[in-house]
Amino acid sequence: MDIQELVKSLARETDSKIVFLIMDGLGGLPVGEHGKTELELARTPNMDELAKKGVLGLADPIAPGISPGSGPGHLALFGYDPVKYLIGRGVLEALGIDFPLQAGDVAIRINFCTVDEKGVVIDRRAGRISTEENARLCQKLKEKIKIEGAEYFLEPVKEHRAVLVFRGEGLGDKLNDTDPQLVGKAPLELSAEDEPSRRTKALADQFLSQAKEILKDEHPANMLLLRGFAKFHRYPSFYEVYKLKACAIAQYPMYRGLARLVGMEILDVGDKLEDLFGVLEQVWERYTFFFVHIKKTDSAGEDGDWARKVEVIEAVDRLIPRVVALKPDVLVITGDHSTPSKLKAHSFHPVPVLIWSENVRRDLAEEFGERACLQGALGRFPMQYLMSLAMAYALKLERFGA
Amino acid sequence: MDIQELVKSLARETDSKIVFLIMDGLGGLPVGEHGKTELELARTPNMDELAKKGVLGLADPIAPGISPGSGPGHLALFGYDPVKYLIGRGVLEALGIDFPLQAGDVAIRINFCTVDEKGVVIDRRAGRISTEENARLCQKLKEKIKIEGAEYFLEPVKEHRAVLVFRGEGLGDKLNDTDPQLVGKAPLELSAEDEPSRRTKALADQFLSQAKEILKDEHPANMLLLRGFAKFHRYPSFYEVYKLKACAIAQYPMYRGLARLVGMEILDVGDKLEDLFGVLEQVWERYTFFFVHIKKTDSAGEDGDWARKVEVIEAVDRLIPRVVALKPDVLVITGDHSTPSKLKAHSFHPVPVLIWSENVRRDLAEEFGERACLQGALGRFPMQYLMSLAMAYALKLERFGA
Repeated sequence: MDIQELVKSLARETDSKIVFLIMDGLGGLPVGEHGKTELELARTPNMDELAKKGVLGLADPIAPGISPGSGPGHLALFGYDPVKYLIGRGVLEALGIDFPLQAGDVAIRINFCTVDEKGVVIDRRAGRISTEENARLCQKLKEKIKIEGAEYFLEPVKEHRAVLVFRGEGLGDKLNDTDPQLVGKAPLELSAEDEPSRRTKALADQFLSQAKEILKDEHPANMLLLRGFAKFHRYPSFYEVYKLKACAIAQYPMYRGLARLVGMEILDVGDKLEDLFGVLEQVWERYTFFFVHIKKTDSAGEDGDWARKVEVIEAVDRLIPRVVALKPDVLVITGDHSTPSKLKAHSFHPVPVLIWSENVRRDLAEEFGERACLQGALGRFPMQYLMSLAMAYALKLERFGA
Repeated sequence: MDIQELVKSLARETDSKIVFLIMDGLGGLPVGEHGKTELELARTPNMDELAKKGVLGLADPIAPGISPGSGPGHLALFGYDPVKYLIGRGVLEALGIDFPLQAGDVAIRINFCTVDEKGVVIDRRAGRISTEENARLCQKLKEKIKIEGAEYFLEPVKEHRAVLVFRGEGLGDKLNDTDPQLVGKAPLELSAEDEPSRRTKALADQFLSQAKEILKDEHPANMLLLRGFAKFHRYPSFYEVYKLKACAIAQYPMYRGLARLVGMEILDVGDKLEDLFGVLEQVWERYTFFFVHIKKTDSAGEDGDWARKVEVIEAVDRLIPRVVALKPDVLVITGDHSTPSKLKAHSFHPVPVLIWSENVRRDLAEEFGERACLQGALGRFPMQYLMSLAMAYALKLERFGA
């Protein structure tokens, strides 16, 4: 059974409002002396109050044991099968700079690199050139490179990384990386597996030969490597699937890009944590679904800084009353995956989930934490079901069958 | 989603070590006056200590309500879809005597039987002849039977049962049993459903007509029946799928055979319970995965002897410190299915699972038992996910998606 297809067939448009408050990398592992996770350590009186009145559970973004990247983690949150809809590397890189991809575009990661006089790669990252130098090189390339047969876009990302997008008819993405993976080897020739990909190869070869000439006197970035060819497929939008008017209130480009992928409106928002909540209040009347994304829980986890992760969670908790005051019909608080400070990385541990709504059957949990979630009414479930649950609690789903 | 395919695509080879301590038929049902299961009744201070520091859960080998045989039970433990990879009866019989099957072999169960002068079966088990008599008959048949078109192997199993293997090109296994299932009927003629199976039929018919002649003056085993034609397909090995160097420390042929099926190295081990642990210690440096199989929990359950099952569990518990002293990165203690003494048979009840590792998020369980497992962080899950969990806790899986 495809749960999203089923939900799509039952969804109806109503005025009820759903808020997804996503603390990136929320789930943790025990830290410190008392065996408590970051979320369990944090003083969260407001979330605890919601936990008492709501339901808790633990969700697996992909499957037990599988650590998700940000792409699959968010797709699962949004109710899209994260394996079926796996996002290619080039596309993710383009989303990460908020590039407005169109269906059929082929996006490719670029690494500027250094080659010696024989054309052998001696530094795969060109000494991690500055982002400014990267921007200058991209500008120079764009001014000079002419491609026949398609439009192209070239945008700097960060340090030695950039993104290249081809927009044309019938392009494929079954091409190898030119990155030899090891220094001391020349960049690999491109080869294409099928006819559409041969069209892309013709474009990429034009790009590469001109880029080689243009960059030859630069130092240290005198060449570039192409990686992660990925065709962009249009995703069914939030409105098509759920009949939701959805907006994204997110500060980081990657998450704005992921939200754009599923057809959310992307809102401008300042840099501070409070700004997320300010925008939510301002646009409250205009939408029925609000994706609010908080990045700093994940960043602290990745840095192994459990105290800072606790602080971010506590700071979010202090802002919860502003969300509650808006009287959402359904408020979901969770993450896209776990990022335990102990592991300094995304992990496979299931993600704590809190759902507050008037229509929940209460459970035994008295606070929001991983162990409290073990006693929650939601049990352990695939994250992909979270959207169907939220839609159901918001009374937005028709009955299935007569 | 095929979880094993996904895990295969993410597995990396590392030095971390995983131990699977499998107590066959571990799960039970309440016995005696206090409503406790065998595992709950057993004094298991060492496993309880691991339960406090680890995570518990309950696993369904196949699906809720389905009682597994040993084959599917172990395939699920090893992370292979037990329905997709169902092992045919003939193949299981061959595995049960540690017969080294090769891909393409067709294995068939043999029952020696008794027929009257008209060729009608009057005892489908030939009065359960002794294993020695069985061995004598097999030897006699092997000396005389010549098959054209393929190699064959004939090995006694136990009492009236033997196993026949054909090794040749392009053989099939879509053939009926010759066992009429009822006394008073003649053995059935073989019929084959497709061309490869017709090749097998040609071999089996040669075998049957010669065997009939050779056995005709024997008593009571003056004929034999063929059952469970099954072609052996090579399974993806533990190293191919998980990048694990795996060994099996098992005393019973069936489990050694199942481990060989997935490419584990099969180690010699003495008859005593302690011998399993001695071998584990001896070979510790050589492998990254250790399948340790304890049979006697199941045997006691099958005999309906709950007190003996409790004793076996307690005896295993006393040996646990020897495993812990080796400092495995992940220690899994579970069974391949439940065998409640009350039912004297394999049952469908989910199997208690304990996972101990440095990377667990602790749960509320304080001891190892079926009801404690209800409070475990692993929840209830398909047994096929156990390998992905173990791989994850051992930090042997890459992130899925960017």
